Amino acid sequence: MSNASQLNSVLDRIDADFDNSLQRLFALLRIKSISADPAFAEDCKKAAEHLARDIATIGFSAEVRPTAGHPAIVGKSNGGGTSRPHVLFYGHYDVQPVDPLDLWHRPPFEPVVTDHADGRKIIVARGAEDDKGQVMTFVEACRAWKSVTGSLPLDITMLIEGEEEVGSKNFVPFLEANKDELKADFALVCDTGMWDPNTPAITTSLRGLLYEEVKIKAANRDLHSGVFGGGAQNPIRVLTRILGSLFDDDGRITIPGFYDGVKDLPPDILDQWKKLNLTSEAFLKPIGLSIPAGEKDRLLIEQVFSRPTCDVNGIVGGYIGEGSKTVIPAQASAKVSFRLVEGQVPEKIRKAFRDYVSARVPKDCKVEFGDHSAAPAIALDWNMKPLAAARRALTDEWGKEALLIGCGASIPIVADFKKTLGLETLLVGFGLDDDNIHSPNEKYDLKSFHKGIRSWARILAALAEMPR
Amino acid sequence: MSNASQLNSVLDRIDADFDNSLQRLFALLRIKSISADPAFAEDCKKAAEHLARDIATIGFSAEVRPTAGHPAIVGKSNGGGTSRPHVLFYGHYDVQPVDPLDLWHRPPFEPVVTDHADGRKIIVARGAEDDKGQVMTFVEACRAWKSVTGSLPLDITMLIEGEEEVGSKNFVPFLEANKDELKADFALVCDTGMWDPNTPAITTSLRGLLYEEVKIKAANRDLHSGVFGGGAQNPIRVLTRILGSLFDDDGRITIPGFYDGVKDLPPDILDQWKKLNLTSEAFLKPIGLSIPAGEKDRLLIEQVFSRPTCDVNGIVGGYIGEGSKTVIPAQASAKVSFRLVEGQVPEKIRKAFRDYVSARVPKDCKVEFGDHSAAPAIALDWNMKPLAAARRALTDEWGKEALLIGCGASIPIVADFKKTLGLETLLVGFGLDDDNIHSPNEKYDLKSFHKGIRSWARILAALAEMPR
Repeated sequence: MSNASQLNSVLDRIDADFDNSLQRLFALLRIKSISADPAFAEDCKKAAEHLARDIATIGFSAEVRPTAGHPAIVGKSNGGGTSRPHVLFYGHYDVQPVDPLDLWHRPPFEPVVTDHADGRKIIVARGAEDDKGQVMTFVEACRAWKSVTGSLPLDITMLIEGEEEVGSKNFVPFLEANKDELKADFALVCDTGMWDPNTPAITTSLRGLLYEEVKIKAANRDLHSGVFGGGAQNPIRVLTRILGSLFDDDGRITIPGFYDGVKDLPPDILDQWKKLNLTSEAFLKPIGLSIPAGEKDRLLIEQVFSRPTCDVNGIVGGYIGEGSKTVIPAQASAKVSFRLVEGQVPEKIRKAFRDYVSARVPKDCKVEFGDHSAAPAIALDWNMKPLAAARRALTDEWGKEALLIGCGASIPIVADFKKTLGLETLLVGFGLDDDNIHSPNEKYDLKSFHKGIRSWARILAALAEMPR
Repeated sequence: MSNASQLNSVLDRIDADFDNSLQRLFALLRIKSISADPAFAEDCKKAAEHLARDIATIGFSAEVRPTAGHPAIVGKSNGGGTSRPHVLFYGHYDVQPVDPLDLWHRPPFEPVVTDHADGRKIIVARGAEDDKGQVMTFVEACRAWKSVTGSLPLDITMLIEGEEEVGSKNFVPFLEANKDELKADFALVCDTGMWDPNTPAITTSLRGLLYEEVKIKAANRDLHSGVFGGGAQNPIRVLTRILGSLFDDDGRITIPGFYDGVKDLPPDILDQWKKLNLTSEAFLKPIGLSIPAGEKDRLLIEQVFSRPTCDVNGIVGGYIGEGSKTVIPAQASAKVSFRLVEGQVPEKIRKAFRDYVSARVPKDCKVEFGDHSAAPAIALDWNMKPLAAARRALTDEWGKEALLIGCGASIPIVADFKKTLGLETLLVGFGLDDDNIHSPNEKYDLKSFHKGIRSWARILAALAEMPR
């Protein structure tokens, strides 16, 4: 039987087994694999071991492999010979921190299926979407193929890492060290979104990310603002003055050289994006906002997909408890990140930012910088063959043509796959803008999970049939 | 015997009993009477009861009196008849919070006498100076008088409150409700400093304080900065832009109307202050700074004594833990306070600040304000009789002429004494700029404590002899 003719049985199997798929996802969601916090290192290891055991049950030779940080999982299907396509599937088992915890309606690591306000069924937990739910759409699609046909339609290496949310610092050297073993024809990544709850999408461009920490130090101790106020410099004053000057009145970033190399969209893509008609009503209203905050002369869709940005992700200094304290603190710090686009070089932006800040620090204060991550933007090949195959499969499953879209977020590993393994990457995912990833009450639509599994089952078949 | 002739015996008694005085101070310092944090309410009550018991041992009829917040203590000496002067002594038993706790070299509520880097003996504990140490200089002076002569040289009402560090919100109504009982000829307050470790001072002007909290709310939840960055407003961006604009390049505060009513110093006082020659080397170097941060066209001594200021005392928003999180937070907030001078009306400044902020908040964001305290500046009568008497007594004790100085900090109760009780206040204290009040490792020089007690013993005698 051809893969195509077996597909219907596989899809039936997915529907019949869906409750079990959900339980397997829940088991993974219960593990507190927060990579940013060293207190959860043991949980990260537990998640890796759990996933390795799970994919071993589908016949993958799965190993938990050490890195200098949290471990990675490498799982290989039994090879069907070199005549079949061989894909490298990538995802991550680590999740973001859960604070502010008091804004969660339920404990973040006790997954449930519940009703969204508009009636959609949703899975709620940290990692429900990013990326445990998305990873499990692929795993469950493989499970269904294996269960119905006894094999997979093509050769698959699964590569699941545990440090995506903290910049993959130790995973990239792992890739380099194992590049021969990880060879494949192309990579699949499930960590992106759909256009809307009914319209599937393939992501063809990703913004990069530069993430900096900046600390201003003034006096050698906390001071009384009555005794010293007016005479002694306040590091919060210095920090807010610098951060407050990062944007001009038109929403442009003021760091000299920041926009160097940034190109306008090709007219045909801009036309296509204009037709998508992303409005403030549709994009901002659900999050309680109404005014696009980016460059005033750009479409909202450009602001979030194709323009570089700056955000202060965290700031702290002085007394932040209840009540009041008349203190001039000794230091204040902020976490500042930049979404980068094609043409921007992360290290150049880092230097430009640090120069900008340093030039504005009073001579008797000190500034310290810390780097969290740096990844360039990615533009994928719109004409790669797997893209056309996957697009057809997605269109079949959802009954609406799959769109080719940009993504504002970064998936830095895509650049590393290209550089280290020489692989193009196909980005397919089932997330939605209201999934609250990185926020309290993260969710994944039950429909995304179910039809996501079905989508991958179809994509695997389509990729297997693809002319090589 | 006249008071003057008994004074030497009283001073001898103070020297002989000093170790016990220190132990009594330590007992008070061990009580964690942090008024800002409701978790320490019981400790505040304990401190009040402890103090009341202690002054009862000197013959005061001392009571712990309830307020709507932490209790106050009222203690009255046995009246010697209406012919004697009657003073109202004020202090506070509450202390500032102790965070950041990891910067303390020792637990803050385990007082010790230790050596300062330059060889001075110091008492280290939260409250060692502000205000437990200062209060006990007065209590111990009374004890010595009582012990040697069996009575006090004049009538004294002691009034010790427990909410000075949180704005005395409940204490002011208490004053109002008990104003008949609290009548006196004038008030004494021990909560200020000396000019330097060898030069005593009487404070004749105090800056006021307006303390505001401002919270900016943007999206209805925390957002992923990749998905929403560039399109969604970031409340830290809004907050830092506003706070960063509060000062111009010359260190002047930019809020319209902020300087309305502020007068320049009278030429004679400015001349006197110029002669004091407060240098950056002397004032800023010990705290690790070198450049006066206030208005460029003002002397450093003006910046800290007589000019109004603005300080952000705390700021927080977004992710402030270890590592990185690509979040656009839903809200960000700051604690902002202003030191006010004569001529500035706190409520006008509050309105000007709120108008300034509100005008700069994007239409789709919200701003919320909270008020912590508001007190006008105080200018005392340089010619009041008790001032001359106290000045002579201080000069006798320290062997250097007592200076008349300004104080950058606020003691709002002084305005309330005037308004509610019709009393002028004499401000004498033995604090030093390097006492780390409101900071980790608060200290009080052992010499300040010892000679502070002796100073009060002399001042009481001088006030008793004062022509009425």
